[in-house]
Amino acid sequence: MNKRILLTVAYDGTAYSGWQIQPQGETVEGTLNRALTELLEQETAVIGASRTDAGVHALGNRAVFDTKSMIPAEKFSYALNRYLPQDIRINASKEVPDDFHPRKTNCEKTYVYQIYNAPFPDPTRRLYSHFTYVPLDVQKMKKAAQHFVGTQDFAAVSTFKPEVESTVRTIMQITVEAEEETAGPAEKKHAGMITITVRGNGFLYHMVRIIAGTLIDVGCGRLQPEQIPVILESKDREKAGQTAPACGLTLREIRFIPEPEVGAEDAD
Amino acid sequence: MNKRILLTVAYDGTAYSGWQIQPQGETVEGTLNRALTELLEQETAVIGASRTDAGVHALGNRAVFDTKSMIPAEKFSYALNRYLPQDIRINASKEVPDDFHPRKTNCEKTYVYQIYNAPFPDPTRRLYSHFTYVPLDVQKMKKAAQHFVGTQDFAAVSTFKPEVESTVRTIMQITVEAEEETAGPAEKKHAGMITITVRGNGFLYHMVRIIAGTLIDVGCGRLQPEQIPVILESKDREKAGQTAPACGLTLREIRFIPEPEVGAEDAD
Repeated sequence: MNKRILLTVAYDGTAYSGWQIQPQGETVEGTLNRALTELLEQETAVIGASRTDAGVHALGNRAVFDTKSMIPAEKFSYALNRYLPQDIRINASKEVPDDFHPRKTNCEKTYVYQIYNAPFPDPTRRLYSHFTYVPLDVQKMKKAAQHFVGTQDFAAVSTFKPEVESTVRTIMQITVEAEEETAGPAEKKHAGMITITVRGNGFLYHMVRIIAGTLIDVGCGRLQPEQIPVILESKDREKAGQTAPACGLTLREIRFIPEPEVGAEDAD
Repeated sequence: MNKRILLTVAYDGTAYSGWQIQPQGETVEGTLNRALTELLEQETAVIGASRTDAGVHALGNRAVFDTKSMIPAEKFSYALNRYLPQDIRINASKEVPDDFHPRKTNCEKTYVYQIYNAPFPDPTRRLYSHFTYVPLDVQKMKKAAQHFVGTQDFAAVSTFKPEVESTVRTIMQITVEAEEETAGPAEKKHAGMITITVRGNGFLYHMVRIIAGTLIDVGCGRLQPEQIPVILESKDREKAGQTAPACGLTLREIRFIPEPEVGAEDAD
């Protein structure tokens, strides 16, 4: 009997050319497929919920695969981890309905972008945050962030992709938290690690990284919080900040709505 | 005119066989010497304050070198960083008296040991913390930690080295902080990242890592806080916990007493 298994996947994206299999370079998808194929002794491939870019990390990406294996669904995390490198870990596995598709199901995604704001870089933080030594005004960043909340056209803060039909998305919540609360580059204080957390129902290409880059511009005074609505209305990518580097971005969680369960509905 | 320059050195120890030059393997000292020799176009070597082990990180190790270069002392951090890989950064540089020796000067060192206590490992934390899934009782760890404070014989929590004359050292302060405060593995709650911070006037070989390993034993109930004084009195390495892995350890700061300054004394 064929079963569809849903995995929760955490990875350090540093060594990978992103999620999706590429002609060149190691990918998370490719590494997962190889591990599954080895474990099951049969060619097996996953379908991922989110195709994260090169260098982006994840704590809770999700992916499905089909198998006739007798391994209990919940044991796949343990079984698979033995075939995976330390920078990819399966944190959970369970059976879901046969027709569950992780990219065609309504969901909420939570991304985290980390900015390390200090006089000197910290080599032990360099792989998981973007370093900037210009003191950032965290209060202004918090204020600016609120303008991104809501159902809006996010064309100005995304990289154009011709195949995307609509650039309207909903951001439910954004928070900006810092080790040290600062107000103003005037006072020349550094905020330490700044964590931007964004929860939404879908994201356009580069959207979180451009929001992060725009908030950095606000933090160092190049933009004012009040300019955010004007930038969004313009739908002009040129008006927003730079695309902040991939290493600062982590896909923290994907919550399917409803969460798929076998038995709950048609487990044919 | 010869000058002695003191550097503050931060590094991610993951890729290095420790500080000290080895017959095999890349070292922090070796990499610094190569960068200095390239920058100054003259064979140059540093003397480090702390010879950290393979895989141990540092935010504030310190090292001196001598040069006749005209580069202003304070500019060496910028100049040298251009010749160093991203996992080694010089955060400060200044001139010190000619006879200042970083290992023969009274100092206070602060080490941090990080334990990631969660149901599943987080690949983005794996290089800078020791993962353990057994729920740890943070309250008991805090209590046990206080028994290490003071001037005591730390033979039981160090790896024997024949050349060391005395195993008496002074620990000024230990703190144990966790993302989630827990009490008891009974309640089966995970503490998240646990940070042990130890400040002392010198440390024996493996001392912080064995203290961390012993506190983990307390946290999971294998040892009681009251047993720490008995273990220390025994001077028996076998009675303490395991040497916790190197990756969890970071040398945060070395404070010289007094802090060396040229002009302050004999700058012959």
